[in-house]
Amino acid sequence: MTKQDDKAPGLSRRALLGGSAKMATVAGATAAAGMTGWAGGNALRVPAAQAATGSASVPPGDLDEYYGFWSSGQTGEVRIMGIPSMRELMRIPVFNRCSATGWGQTNESIKVLTEGLTPETKAYLAKHGGVWHNGDAHHPHMSFTDGTYDGRYLFINDKANTRVARIRCDVMKCDKIIEVPNAADIHGMRPQKFPRTGYIFANGEHRIPIPNDGMILDEPDKYRSIFSAIDGDTMQVAWQVIVNGNLDNCDADYQGLYAFSTCYNSEEGVTLAEMTSSEQDWAVVFDVKAIEAAVQAGDFTEISGVPVLDGQKGSRFTRYIPISNSPHGCNTAPDGRHVVINGKLSPTVSVIDVTKLPDVFADKIKPRDAIVAEPQLGLGPLHTAFDNKGNCYTTLFLDSQVAKWSMDKAIQAFKGEDVDPILGKVDVQYQPGHNHTSMGETKEADGKWLVSLNKFSKDRFINVGPLKPENEQLIDITGDQMQVVHDGPTFAEPHDCIIVKASIVNPRSTWDPEDPIWEDARNQAKQDGLELGDASELIRDGNKVRVYMYSAAPSFSMEQFSVKQGDEVTLIITNIDDVDDLTHGFTLANYGVAFEIGPQATASVTFTADRPGVHWFYCQWFCHALHMEMRGRMLVEPRAA
Amino acid sequence: MTKQDDKAPGLSRRALLGGSAKMATVAGATAAAGMTGWAGGNALRVPAAQAATGSASVPPGDLDEYYGFWSSGQTGEVRIMGIPSMRELMRIPVFNRCSATGWGQTNESIKVLTEGLTPETKAYLAKHGGVWHNGDAHHPHMSFTDGTYDGRYLFINDKANTRVARIRCDVMKCDKIIEVPNAADIHGMRPQKFPRTGYIFANGEHRIPIPNDGMILDEPDKYRSIFSAIDGDTMQVAWQVIVNGNLDNCDADYQGLYAFSTCYNSEEGVTLAEMTSSEQDWAVVFDVKAIEAAVQAGDFTEISGVPVLDGQKGSRFTRYIPISNSPHGCNTAPDGRHVVINGKLSPTVSVIDVTKLPDVFADKIKPRDAIVAEPQLGLGPLHTAFDNKGNCYTTLFLDSQVAKWSMDKAIQAFKGEDVDPILGKVDVQYQPGHNHTSMGETKEADGKWLVSLNKFSKDRFINVGPLKPENEQLIDITGDQMQVVHDGPTFAEPHDCIIVKASIVNPRSTWDPEDPIWEDARNQAKQDGLELGDASELIRDGNKVRVYMYSAAPSFSMEQFSVKQGDEVTLIITNIDDVDDLTHGFTLANYGVAFEIGPQATASVTFTADRPGVHWFYCQWFCHALHMEMRGRMLVEPRAA
Repeated sequence: MTKQDDKAPGLSRRALLGGSAKMATVAGATAAAGMTGWAGGNALRVPAAQAATGSASVPPGDLDEYYGFWSSGQTGEVRIMGIPSMRELMRIPVFNRCSATGWGQTNESIKVLTEGLTPETKAYLAKHGGVWHNGDAHHPHMSFTDGTYDGRYLFINDKANTRVARIRCDVMKCDKIIEVPNAADIHGMRPQKFPRTGYIFANGEHRIPIPNDGMILDEPDKYRSIFSAIDGDTMQVAWQVIVNGNLDNCDADYQGLYAFSTCYNSEEGVTLAEMTSSEQDWAVVFDVKAIEAAVQAGDFTEISGVPVLDGQKGSRFTRYIPISNSPHGCNTAPDGRHVVINGKLSPTVSVIDVTKLPDVFADKIKPRDAIVAEPQLGLGPLHTAFDNKGNCYTTLFLDSQVAKWSMDKAIQAFKGEDVDPILGKVDVQYQPGHNHTSMGETKEADGKWLVSLNKFSKDRFINVGPLKPENEQLIDITGDQMQVVHDGPTFAEPHDCIIVKASIVNPRSTWDPEDPIWEDARNQAKQDGLELGDASELIRDGNKVRVYMYSAAPSFSMEQFSVKQGDEVTLIITNIDDVDDLTHGFTLANYGVAFEIGPQATASVTFTADRPGVHWFYCQWFCHALHMEMRGRMLVEPRAA
Repeated sequence: MTKQDDKAPGLSRRALLGGSAKMATVAGATAAAGMTGWAGGNALRVPAAQAATGSASVPPGDLDEYYGFWSSGQTGEVRIMGIPSMRELMRIPVFNRCSATGWGQTNESIKVLTEGLTPETKAYLAKHGGVWHNGDAHHPHMSFTDGTYDGRYLFINDKANTRVARIRCDVMKCDKIIEVPNAADIHGMRPQKFPRTGYIFANGEHRIPIPNDGMILDEPDKYRSIFSAIDGDTMQVAWQVIVNGNLDNCDADYQGLYAFSTCYNSEEGVTLAEMTSSEQDWAVVFDVKAIEAAVQAGDFTEISGVPVLDGQKGSRFTRYIPISNSPHGCNTAPDGRHVVINGKLSPTVSVIDVTKLPDVFADKIKPRDAIVAEPQLGLGPLHTAFDNKGNCYTTLFLDSQVAKWSMDKAIQAFKGEDVDPILGKVDVQYQPGHNHTSMGETKEADGKWLVSLNKFSKDRFINVGPLKPENEQLIDITGDQMQVVHDGPTFAEPHDCIIVKASIVNPRSTWDPEDPIWEDARNQAKQDGLELGDASELIRDGNKVRVYMYSAAPSFSMEQFSVKQGDEVTLIITNIDDVDDLTHGFTLANYGVAFEIGPQATASVTFTADRPGVHWFYCQWFCHALHMEMRGRMLVEPRAA
């Protein structure tokens, strides 16, 4: 394949998709080409002994070497995995409701879930349920310092309700969620790698009117996509850039100069037929320093309180690099120089050399001149991961394979040398999306493990009904050939993940009693003349009642309290146990109240005592031989008739 | 140990608990005796090679031999596991909210979650959130025919909101949930084993006034616990029996004659000190045939529409068998004859011989004469599982061990023979609650696998913060010595489980388009002159709008539709794809709407279109190479000012 002047090469999209791009009318689309990778062809199986005895085995009592931080897709939570055992170690509720922890019910979680939303969404939720009950989490990423993970925070996007969340790695709980104004449906999201995070770059995937207040409706030419830089320390939007086309995935460089996003809808269409009508789309490059200078100079429009710049074609803030056929994944290589743009409907990936970008922005060379390799890998290249030897691992969605290829050889081939950059392929089961290597999105990529997150499992596990699990497969990449060593079924869906050396992550085992998460409860206690962890009091304030108690296995400090029907009751519970793993819970029966109280933590819930009678509360987190006796009564006096 | 006349033996509770029973005032209780099993003593580790290469290994592409059906405790869902791989294959939302599937949001799930509730709870939820968002799921059990699993249904209790749910095993979805009237906080729950299920026996653990309407408050002597028999086919309460004391766990015999429940609060106390004041509690036995005859004869009081019998002491419906120190677990052995009552605060388990029960009910022998063995096993015996060789496996919560013992030898020892019934012990990590053997709660117990569900994991996995996972351990019981072959961390909490031969469970892979779950939607479509799966229509009916569409990868049949601000919109979507594993989803952005639509299924959601503007809907269940282009617009016209 030879370089072309500002036109991306690639096969015809129609040829690839067997006409399914035309299937907007649906009939017959069930035999869509996207599924043809399933039948046959996936015969490779690792010998049983190899699979069981390989380095992936973690015997009982041994510890994993890596943390995996996993998106759960539409389940809305973040999962912590152990690698290489592929065991799920923890769920962190983020965009979902959680029955066990009370996420979405405790006052502390409601604050996190609501305080960062736009005024319009706050008004909507005040009428409808108080919090969003769902989210569509895609891309979990850790904060960086100097090009590698620093163990401070995790960030993750919600496509469903246009949010970005932050998780504190010291306690593995979500502490901030913001809705990104002016954007619709945040998709691609990556942290700044250098000098530190810094920014979280976030893509508004879908084009909408700005503002989206109903004044503009079916006028798609007035819709726009917007790129956001969020300050990861304050969780405020620092600035936004309006672009042409739309925004899919993104990444950042290792120099702190540029960010990159893919666009699959350069057509700016609103139907499937329109969005897929062109054989060519692009990757857009953002000049971070130029944008910062403009914001600093006041050279922006403020919309919804955010500095917004125009980055449409012709702007000094952006350059649009033509890429074939709806590029999707966007992955900066640990060599600090190359960015792989994955073709999706083109069988190719396109490699940007960041050292050429100053000349692109200076208009000394054309945008396409930043492309230094474009290997043809197979059908449906979606995402690329990296090892520490200059090799790249690209998922092929339609082929149900991972292709291993050499960056150097791909660059040589692009220059016209007669070398094959492809070093091997391995079948995965089935239809892989994101993949990830151990430390592979940092400068400390170590080339040990590759995880392929496959969208279908089909016949790979005993049948669990019409809804099948996804399948995350662990692949040993230390040898010349990739070897699938573990099939991991998972509930919807292991959308994306990162794999982090265990030594980088150092959480606490018990809470700091002064943690800011329950600052409001602490302040209220002070106003009430009480100290959390010591107070066992019922404070009545008109029809508002605050009940302070503490817990220590196997008791709550109150064995009963009385309120009146209709009272607004706030329960504030502090777990004074300070033993590792000694979490208590508080469930108030037949009131729908239940929440977690970690060792040394405080949590609170407010509800209306509308149901008269005797209501037992109990600890639902098994804590002691007398756990079942750890309970008490709320007596609700009926309102006088 | 020798038989005693109607008084259960056992060590002093105080001696066992180091005084913690007195710790109602909490101070100092963090060093509670319940935790002392942690330090040291758990040194046994299975050699690495053994762990990795044993029969527990399931290489990529191989299938598990058993389904595990797992409670999730306070998470409120049911989990399907593969055994012996110990991989989680699926989550079934039941008492929780689910962001991915829309459980708690779709009209179909809201119907399941609300139609079986009491009028009082319906009234409460109409004011507060529409559905319960939480549950505390404990005991998952499959329906039986002739003493073994029949693959029709799973049942599970919710202690938090007094419910029992049913899951259809053909599709692995919950189809019925009822609130049990007159009861508080359903705990123990087991299906009738013979001749079939039949009844689901369910224990109201906590004593409350009946009715609990606030007329009786702090008068504990007027509180009662109630035992319920639910018809598993109709999911209606067939009858209830009021008892003395309280009700903890339960089980049923293999003859269809008796049910059994443990009681840890024979004191009928409401504080920890009161509930633990007596050294002796009991197991209560229910005479099912006598109860049925009384109900048939109209010899009952109807309360909340349910026939209620008085089973307090002196009743012909019950017998109370004295058992030491707060018995907890209740497990019928596959020999069809013996029922093990687990002592919790006594180091013993007590074995009831069901063949002696007719004489107990006929008052020919004393209740304690039904006890035929009472081996002393160790500290904190909670639950017992069985193999097919007459051996029993009892979890020891305080010792953090599983004790293997012989039923025959325990009976011999109880007769005074000089034999030790204990065959071995294995350390588990840490503090085990329920345990379960493969097919062990049926007459087809096969003695292959034992799972120990441990409440604490502490140092067993890399640290994930103050909230640690539980630890479910897989133990090979085919040899003379038990061998821990796998540590499985899990999110709160693997409360209980069953292990079922894979051949018994045969789910569908795609839905029957005529499934009753979306009967209401089908009927509405008929009224609208439409057919689900074929309709792509917007029907306006005043300010109510029904939008029918169908999906087939990669398109929805509508690429846009328009409504007016304030309309009540019902979306009814049918997935016409009929390929295995081709689930679609429907997310309506920034409206908090998201749900699953399985192959050939229909699902619907109703919401108020309060937010004007352009709102994209999209498929959130990865389905096709053009998945991201599978989207359309809802245009909401602003209400005239």
